[in-house]
Amino acid sequence: MGNRLAGSPGAASAVEWTKQLMESYDFDTVYLQPVMVPHWERGGKDVVKIVNSEKHGTVELNALALGNTQGTGPGGLVGEVVEVKSIPELREMGDKVKGKIVFFNGPMDPKLIDTFQAYGGANAQRSSGAAEASKLGAIGTLVRSLSNTVNDIPHTGNQRYNPDFPKIPALAISTQDAELLSQLLADQADLKVYLESHGEMKTEKLSYNVIGEIRGTEKPEEIIAVGGHLDSWDVGEGAHDDGAGCMQAIEVLRLYKELGWKPKRTIRAVMWMNEENGLRGGQEYARVAKEKGEKHIAALESDSGGFLPIGFSSSGTDAQRGKLASWGDLLRQYQLWSLDRPGGGADIGPLRDQGPILIGLKPDSQRYFFYHHTEADVFEAVDQRELELGAAAMAALVYLIEQEGI
Amino acid sequence: MGNRLAGSPGAASAVEWTKQLMESYDFDTVYLQPVMVPHWERGGKDVVKIVNSEKHGTVELNALALGNTQGTGPGGLVGEVVEVKSIPELREMGDKVKGKIVFFNGPMDPKLIDTFQAYGGANAQRSSGAAEASKLGAIGTLVRSLSNTVNDIPHTGNQRYNPDFPKIPALAISTQDAELLSQLLADQADLKVYLESHGEMKTEKLSYNVIGEIRGTEKPEEIIAVGGHLDSWDVGEGAHDDGAGCMQAIEVLRLYKELGWKPKRTIRAVMWMNEENGLRGGQEYARVAKEKGEKHIAALESDSGGFLPIGFSSSGTDAQRGKLASWGDLLRQYQLWSLDRPGGGADIGPLRDQGPILIGLKPDSQRYFFYHHTEADVFEAVDQRELELGAAAMAALVYLIEQEGI
Repeated sequence: MGNRLAGSPGAASAVEWTKQLMESYDFDTVYLQPVMVPHWERGGKDVVKIVNSEKHGTVELNALALGNTQGTGPGGLVGEVVEVKSIPELREMGDKVKGKIVFFNGPMDPKLIDTFQAYGGANAQRSSGAAEASKLGAIGTLVRSLSNTVNDIPHTGNQRYNPDFPKIPALAISTQDAELLSQLLADQADLKVYLESHGEMKTEKLSYNVIGEIRGTEKPEEIIAVGGHLDSWDVGEGAHDDGAGCMQAIEVLRLYKELGWKPKRTIRAVMWMNEENGLRGGQEYARVAKEKGEKHIAALESDSGGFLPIGFSSSGTDAQRGKLASWGDLLRQYQLWSLDRPGGGADIGPLRDQGPILIGLKPDSQRYFFYHHTEADVFEAVDQRELELGAAAMAALVYLIEQEGI
Repeated sequence: MGNRLAGSPGAASAVEWTKQLMESYDFDTVYLQPVMVPHWERGGKDVVKIVNSEKHGTVELNALALGNTQGTGPGGLVGEVVEVKSIPELREMGDKVKGKIVFFNGPMDPKLIDTFQAYGGANAQRSSGAAEASKLGAIGTLVRSLSNTVNDIPHTGNQRYNPDFPKIPALAISTQDAELLSQLLADQADLKVYLESHGEMKTEKLSYNVIGEIRGTEKPEEIIAVGGHLDSWDVGEGAHDDGAGCMQAIEVLRLYKELGWKPKRTIRAVMWMNEENGLRGGQEYARVAKEKGEKHIAALESDSGGFLPIGFSSSGTDAQRGKLASWGDLLRQYQLWSLDRPGGGADIGPLRDQGPILIGLKPDSQRYFFYHHTEADVFEAVDQRELELGAAAMAALVYLIEQEGI
C-alpha cells in the first residue's frame, strides 16, 4: 500500500484493502463507517532556493510544503529571511517580520531521551508558525524539519491557518539545509529565498473508518477499541505512521481467531481516517458511539511507530490506571516496563468523555523522527520482529482487559 | 575501520588507530598490552552446493566457514546429508552419521523475547557441532546460521574442535538455505552436498589490548575497567560487534575530559583483543592485573550491539548487586529499566576471581542477530543516537561507581 492522504485515491484503496483483509480473517463483523474528510493536494514539486548568497550564489534546499497549506502558485515568491527559534521569539520581533519570510529554526532538544517530548517541544513552529507569522504581516514561512537527526530529508506535517489572516505559504526544509541557511544568514542579513509551492485545499470527500469486530461472549456490550490511523502523509508509504499501528490492531484480532479464543468482551479493530490533517475519523467514531449508546471501556491506539514496544501510556481515572498498574508484573516479563506515563492517542482522544481508559502503545522512540512524515517512511524501514512484538504486547493487554475489565 | 580478526593486518591497524584516537583525547595514560593470539584465515571463498536435487539439480547455498575450522582444501568433499536439530539428537543418531555430512538445523526460539537467550539455546550446534559429529565419524558439518530472521545472509562464528578427533570442515549456511535444504531432504533422503572451504590455523601472532586511563583523584588504586573487544570476524566491519562497544568505552572517558570532571577512582578504557576466536586478550588482561596486584572494583563491558540501552546485567556479590540496584531510581529515569538480570561480558569474565562486580551494558536485542558475524554488520547499520545513548548510560553508571564505590 503506497501513501494515502485522506481524500486521495490511495486512501480509497487502503479502505478497500483493509476491509478485504479483515474479511479474509473472518472477523464477526467488518464494516465501513462513512466520514467526510478534508482533501488537500500538494499539487506539484515544492521548491526553496536561496537566490543571492554571496558565498554560494543560488542554493536549492530540500523542501516539502506543510499539509493544508495554500501554495504560492507557479510564479513563486521571493523575500528576505528572518530567523527565529520559536513562536515567542517571533512575537518579540513584531513588525520586523512584515513583508519577510520567517524561518523557524528551533531544533528538537536532543537531551530529552523520549523523542516525542522533544517533538512536542518543537512542533508549535510547524503547526502554528504560519498563522502566527501571518498575523505580523510575514509573506511566507520556512520551518526546520522536526527531526532529531541532521540530514537532507524534509519532513512535512500538519499546520493550521488562522482564518482571520492571509494563508501564507509554509514549507519545511531539511535539518541540514536549516543549518546551512542559518549559517549563511549569520553572515549575510539580506539573504533572499525563493519559495514555490502548489498546495490547495479542495472540496471535502467521502471516506471511511474501517472497522472489524469480534463479539464478546459474556459482556458483548463492553467494547475495547484497538486501532491506528489508516491515512498517511502524501510522501513515502506511511509505514511507521501508521501502517504499523493498523496492522498491529488487526493482528490482535487475527490472533484471537487463530487461537480460537473467544473474548468475554467485544474487541473492535478500528482504522481511523484522517488523523494527519483533520482527525475527522476519530471525531466521527466517537460521535457515532455516543449516538448509538455504545459503552467503550478501553481504547488502545498504536501510532508511535512499529518499533520495539517498551510499555503503554494512558489516561483515565485513578481506578482505571490502577488496574493497568496492577498488571505490571505480568507486563514487565515481556519487557513492557513503562506503564505510568500519561498518554493515549490522537484518534481515541474524542472518546474521552465517554469514560474509557485511553491507552497508547509506547515503542522505543529513538528512530521514529528519522522517518516521520518523509519519503523515508517505507515498508522496508519496519523491522518485522519489532512490529510483531508490538502486536503481541497489544494482544496481551487486550486479553487482560477483556478477561478482567478495567 | 574494516574487519579485523585477531592476527590480521586489519587488527594491527585497529590497534594503532585506537591508540592514536585515545592519545588525541589526551587521556592520562595510553598504552598497549602485548598478547599472543591465534591467527585463523578463511583462505578463500566458501562453497556449499546441493549436487543431486531431483527437483532443482544443483543448488548453491549461501555459506561461510566457521572460525578456527580446517578447510576441505580446493578439492572439496561430497557427502550425503543427515539433518538434526541439536547435539542430543545427533548423539541419538550414533553410527548413522558415519561418513555423512551432519546438518544442524536448530532454529533460535522466536518465543524468547531476549534474543540472546534464544542464541544461547541454539549456539552449541555451532560451537561444538563439528567436534561432536567428528566423534561419530561424520566427514563435515553444516549449521543453520544463528539468526532469528530468515534470509540469505550466512553468519560465521567460533567453534572448537576436540583434539582427539579429526578436524572436519564446518560451515554455516543462511537460514533461508537451511529451510530449503531441510525441505529437499524431507523429499529426498539421498541428497548430496559439496563442501569447499579453505580455513587454516596459522602460527600465533603478537597483538595487543589497547588501554587508556584517567587516574582517580582520591582512590586511584581502585580501578573501574570499561571496554569492548577490538577484534571482529573477518566479514563485514564488526560495527555492532564490537566496534560499538569500543567506541562507547572510549566515549565514557572522553566525556570526562570534555566536562573537565576528575573521577575519584581510576577509570580505564580497555579494548580487548581476540574475543571472537580465543579470548586471549581478556585472559591476559586479568593475568597482568593479578600479577601487578591491581584492584578492580568493577568491570563494565559493552558487547551486545550499539542499540537502544535498556539496562545493565551483572554478576557479583549480593552487596555489589545491591549497590547497583540502589541506583535503580536514578537509572530508570533514563529508561534503563533492566537491572536485575545476571550477566557480564566475555572479556571481563577472567577478572571474576579478583572480586570486581562484572557488568554488561544491555541494549535492545531484537535486531542484533540480523547483523551478528555477517557481511551486514557495517558502520551504516549503527544508529548514531542509539550508540550515544549507550555511551551515556555507561558514563552515568561509571560516574556513580567512581563517586560512591561498589
